Amino acid sequence: MSAVRRLLLSGDGWPYMLVPFIPIAIVLEFAHVTATIVFAASALGVIPTAALMGKATDELAARSGPGIGGFLNVTFGNAPELIIAFFALNEGLQEVVKASLIGSILGNILLVMGASMFVGGLKHKTQTFDRTAATTQAGLLLLAVVALVLPAVFQLVEGGGLPGPAEESKEFSRDLEIMSIAVAAVLLLTYLVGLFFSLRTHAHLFNPHVEDEEVGSEPWSVRRAVIMLAIAGVAVGLMSEILVGSISEASADIGLSPFFVGLVVVAIIGNAAEHWVAIYFAARNKMHLAVNISIGSSAQIALFAAPVLVLLSFFIGDFPMALVFNGFELAAVLLAVLIAIHVANDGESNWFEGVQLLAVYVVLAVVFFFV
Amino acid sequence: MSAVRRLLLSGDGWPYMLVPFIPIAIVLEFAHVTATIVFAASALGVIPTAALMGKATDELAARSGPGIGGFLNVTFGNAPELIIAFFALNEGLQEVVKASLIGSILGNILLVMGASMFVGGLKHKTQTFDRTAATTQAGLLLLAVVALVLPAVFQLVEGGGLPGPAEESKEFSRDLEIMSIAVAAVLLLTYLVGLFFSLRTHAHLFNPHVEDEEVGSEPWSVRRAVIMLAIAGVAVGLMSEILVGSISEASADIGLSPFFVGLVVVAIIGNAAEHWVAIYFAARNKMHLAVNISIGSSAQIALFAAPVLVLLSFFIGDFPMALVFNGFELAAVLLAVLIAIHVANDGESNWFEGVQLLAVYVVLAVVFFFV
Amino acid sequence: MSAVRRLLLSGDGWPYMLVPFIPIAIVLEFAHVTATIVFAASALGVIPTAALMGKATDELAARSGPGIGGFLNVTFGNAPELIIAFFALNEGLQEVVKASLIGSILGNILLVMGASMFVGGLKHKTQTFDRTAATTQAGLLLLAVVALVLPAVFQLVEGGGLPGPAEESKEFSRDLEIMSIAVAAVLLLTYLVGLFFSLRTHAHLFNPHVEDEEVGSEPWSVRRAVIMLAIAGVAVGLMSEILVGSISEASADIGLSPFFVGLVVVAIIGNAAEHWVAIYFAARNKMHLAVNISIGSSAQIALFAAPVLVLLSFFIGDFPMALVFNGFELAAVLLAVLIAIHVANDGESNWFEGVQLLAVYVVLAVVFFFV
Repeated sequence: MSAVRRLLLSGDGWPYMLVPFIPIAIVLEFAHVTATIVFAASALGVIPTAALMGKATDELAARSGPGIGGFLNVTFGNAPELIIAFFALNEGLQEVVKASLIGSILGNILLVMGASMFVGGLKHKTQTFDRTAATTQAGLLLLAVVALVLPAVFQLVEGGGLPGPAEESKEFSRDLEIMSIAVAAVLLLTYLVGLFFSLRTHAHLFNPHVEDEEVGSEPWSVRRAVIMLAIAGVAVGLMSEILVGSISEASADIGLSPFFVGLVVVAIIGNAAEHWVAIYFAARNKMHLAVNISIGSSAQIALFAAPVLVLLSFFIGDFPMALVFNGFELAAVLLAVLIAIHVANDGESNWFEGVQLLAVYVVLAVVFFFV
Repeated sequence: MSAVRRLLLSGDGWPYMLVPFIPIAIVLEFAHVTATIVFAASALGVIPTAALMGKATDELAARSGPGIGGFLNVTFGNAPELIIAFFALNEGLQEVVKASLIGSILGNILLVMGASMFVGGLKHKTQTFDRTAATTQAGLLLLAVVALVLPAVFQLVEGGGLPGPAEESKEFSRDLEIMSIAVAAVLLLTYLVGLFFSLRTHAHLFNPHVEDEEVGSEPWSVRRAVIMLAIAGVAVGLMSEILVGSISEASADIGLSPFFVGLVVVAIIGNAAEHWVAIYFAARNKMHLAVNISIGSSAQIALFAAPVLVLLSFFIGDFPMALVFNGFELAAVLLAVLIAIHVANDGESNWFEGVQLLAVYVVLAVVFFFV
Repeated sequence: MSAVRRLLLSGDGWPYMLVPFIPIAIVLEFAHVTATIVFAASALGVIPTAALMGKATDELAARSGPGIGGFLNVTFGNAPELIIAFFALNEGLQEVVKASLIGSILGNILLVMGASMFVGGLKHKTQTFDRTAATTQAGLLLLAVVALVLPAVFQLVEGGGLPGPAEESKEFSRDLEIMSIAVAAVLLLTYLVGLFFSLRTHAHLFNPHVEDEEVGSEPWSVRRAVIMLAIAGVAVGLMSEILVGSISEASADIGLSPFFVGLVVVAIIGNAAEHWVAIYFAARNKMHLAVNISIGSSAQIALFAAPVLVLLSFFIGDFPMALVFNGFELAAVLLAVLIAIHVANDGESNWFEGVQLLAVYVVLAVVFFFV
C-alpha cells in the first residue's frame, strides 16, 4: 500500500499539522507543568512522529524489494507502539505495557475496522474483501488468544491470582516466566513463517496490485529514507519517554485509572495513523486494504510486538514480564477476536456491521472506565 | 410476515383453543387453590393472550407503513415477555427476570431454530436462507454477549461473587448499576440503529417479498386492532401477574428450582407463538423467515427487552437490576451464541443441524435441572 | 476410505515394522525392568495392534454394507483409545482417562488436521473440502463443548473445585454423577442419529465415491477379518494394560507429569494410525478425507468414547467418572474447537493454516509441560 500511503502521509498530510506539539511537549516537560498538560502535549506530539516513521519505512520498503521491504514493515510498522512500551517496561510499568498491547489489538479490530466499515458502508452499500487473507490473519489472532489465555489458566490453577487492573507490575513464578519465553518464541516464529506466506507463496492474496494505480509524490532516496527513519525514531522515543513519564500522575489528575489510560487513550494515540489510513481506503471502496490493516495490525501486535517485549523484558526492568493478563484483558480480547472472525468470515461488510464493532468498543470502554 | 401470521393466528388458530384457561386461571387464583395448579392454568392462559397480542400488532403494523410498523413490532413483539418480567421485577424477583431473559434467548436460538431446522429438513433435504441477514443479527448477539460478560468480569475482579442461581435478587455496587445503565443505553441505541438498517437501507435482505403470496383472512381496521391490542395487553398483564405470583410456591411444590422454572418453563411459554410460527415457515421451506424469527427474537430480547428492563428497574422495585448474570447463564448464552453463529454462517441447514441445536438445549436443561 | 486404507495398512505398511515391540514389551514387563523402558516399548507396541485393528475393521465393514459397516467403524474405530481408557479406569486413574480423551480431541483437531493441511498445502497451493460435512461435524464438537463445560460450571457454582491436573481421580457429588449419565446419554444418542444422517440421508456428503478409484490388495474374507479383529483386540488390550500400568512410574522417572503424558504422549500414540492416514490423503489432494478423519475422529471421541466410558465407569472402578474436566482441559478444548470451526468454515486450506494449527498445539504442549 506504499504509494497511497505515501500520497496520504506526504508533507502536507494532516498528522504533520501536529508537529508543533513536539517542541511544546519538550518545553512543558522541562518547565515541570502539570502532568496532564504534559501528557496531552506529548500524546499529540507522538502522532506526527509515528506518521513520519510510517512514511520513512514505506519509502525504504519501496526501494528494497518485497522480501526486505516486508521485513522492514514488520520491524518498524509497530515501532511507535514498541518504543512507547519499551519506555514503560523500563519504568517497571509492566501491566501498563500489557494494557496498551491489548488496547492496540482491541482498537485495531473494533475501532479501526468498525470505523472503516461504517464510513465505507455509508458510501458503498455492500463492500467486499478477500476472505482468505482476512481469515488467515484472524487465525493468527486465535493462536494469540490461546497463547494469552493458557498461561492465565496456569496461574489460576496453581492458585495464584491474575494481576489486578490497578497493579503497575506483578511478578510471577519462574515457571511462568520460562513458559512465557517459550510461548513468545512460538508466536514470533509463526509470525515470521506467516510473513513468508504472505510475501512469497501466497502474495497475490495480500497484495492484489491496486497500489500501482495511484501516483504519489516523488519517491525518496534510500539515503533520505534512512535519515528520516532515524530522525523519526529519535522523535518517537523522546515523545514516548515524556508520555510514559506522565501517565501515572496525569491519570490520577484526570481521575481515570492508568488501566483505562493505557488500554484506551494510549492505544488510540499509538494507532492514529492506522485509523486514518484504513478509513481512507474504506471510503475509496478498497475494503480489503482496510481489513488487512486492521486485522493485520492486531496480529502484528499480538505475534510480533508482544513476544518481542516479553523477550526484551528479560534484559530491562527488575523482573521479566510474563504473558499473564488480567481478567478484563482476557475476556475483551477473546470476545473481540471472535467478533473479528465473525465479521471477516463472509468477506463482505456494510455500515451496520461497522456500527456493531464500534458498539462493542464503546461497551468495553464503558466497563474499563469503572475499573 | 404479517399475512401468513394473520392466517395462522386467525380466530381458529390452535392457541385460541387455550382461551378457556384465562378465566379458569382467574377463578383458581381467587379460590386460593394449590400454587402448582394456578401456575399451570395461568401458563396455559398466557399463550392465547400472547397470540392475540401478536396478531393485533401485526394488523396494526400492516396498516401503518414499514417505519411505524417496524417500530410497533419491536415495541409489542416481545410485549408478553416484557410484561411477565415487569411483574417479576415489581415483586423483587430480579434474578428470575434475568433467568427468563436468558431462557428466552436460549429458547429462540436452540429450541425454535432447532425445531425449525429439524422439521423443515425432514421435508426438504437442504434448506437455504440469506446469510447476510442471519449473520447481521448474530453479530448483534455477539455484542450482547460482550455486554453480559464484561460486567460479570468486573464483579469478579472487584472481588464480589456472581449471583447464585438460588437467589431471587441481589444488590450490586453503585458502579455496576451506573455501568449497567450505560451499557443498556448502548445496546438500545444499537438496536434502534439496526432497526433503521433492516427497515430502510437494507430492507431487501430482511423482507424479501414473500408474504404477499399468501392470502389471509379479512384485514382488521385500525380501530379494531387498537382495541384488540388493549384487550390483549390487559389479559397478558393479568395472566402474568398470576403466573409470577405463583412461581416461587409452585416450583417448590413440583420440586424444581425457581431458576429452572424461569429459565426453561417460563421461557417456553413466553415464546410459544414464535415457536409455532417459525416451525410453520420452516415446514413450508421459508427457512429465511424461520431463522429471522429465531435469531431476530433473541437479538430483540438481548438488545431491547433486557435494556428496557434495566432502565425500568431504576423506577420499580427496591434497587436497580444490574446486568450481572450468574455463571450458568453466562456460559450457556456464550456457547449458544457461538452455536447460532456456526449454524447461521453457511446459509444452509439440514435436519441434523436441527438435532444438534435441540441436543444442546437438552444438555443445558439437564444441567439446569440439577441447579 | 477402506480401499486406500487397506493398501496403506497392508502387511508391508510402516506400522507393522513396530510389531517386534509387542513381544519385547511383554518380556520387559515380566522382567520388571524400569517403568520408562516398559512404557516406551508398550507405546510402540500399541501402534501396530491399533493399525491391525483398523484394517480388520475396514475389511469387515467393506463386507457388510454401509449400515452395519458404519456401525462397525464407530464401534471399533476408536477401540484402541477405548481399551487404553478402560484399563486406566479400572486402575482408578479417572483423571488420566479424561486427559487422554481431551488429548485425543486436541491431537486430532490440531496435530492431525494441522499436519495434513501443512503437508497437503506444500504440494497443492490451495486445497478444498466439503464445507457441509466439515461444519456438521464441527457442530457436534460444539455440542460436546457445551456438555463438557456446563458440568464444570455446576461444580464451580456449587463451590466445589475442579479436579487438579495433578490428581489421579476425584469423586464428585451424586448430582454430578447422575447429570453426567444424562448428558452422556444425550451425546451418545445424538452421535447415533448423526451416524444415520451421514450413512443414510446425506451419505453423498460424507462418502463422495473416491475410494473406488484405488485398487488395494486382495480383500479379506469375513472369517479372516473377524479372527484378525479378535487377535488385534487381545493384543491392544495386552499392550494397553502394560502401558497404563507403567504410566505413573514412567512419568515420574522422566520428570513429566502424568497429566502431560496422558494428554500429549498417550494421545499421540493412540491416534498414530489416524495421523498417518490423514496426511497420506492430504498429500494426494483428498483434503475432504483428511478433514473428515481429523474432525470426525474428534467428534467420535467426544460423543462416543467419552459417554461410553462415563457409562462404563458406573460398573468398574471405585466410583463413577463424572464429566467434570480441569481448567486446562476446558480452556484447551474450547479454543481448539473454535479454531477447528474457523478453519473448516471456508472449505479451503493452505500450508499456513496447517502451521497455525500446529503452532496452537505447540503452545498447548508448552503450557501442559509446566503443569
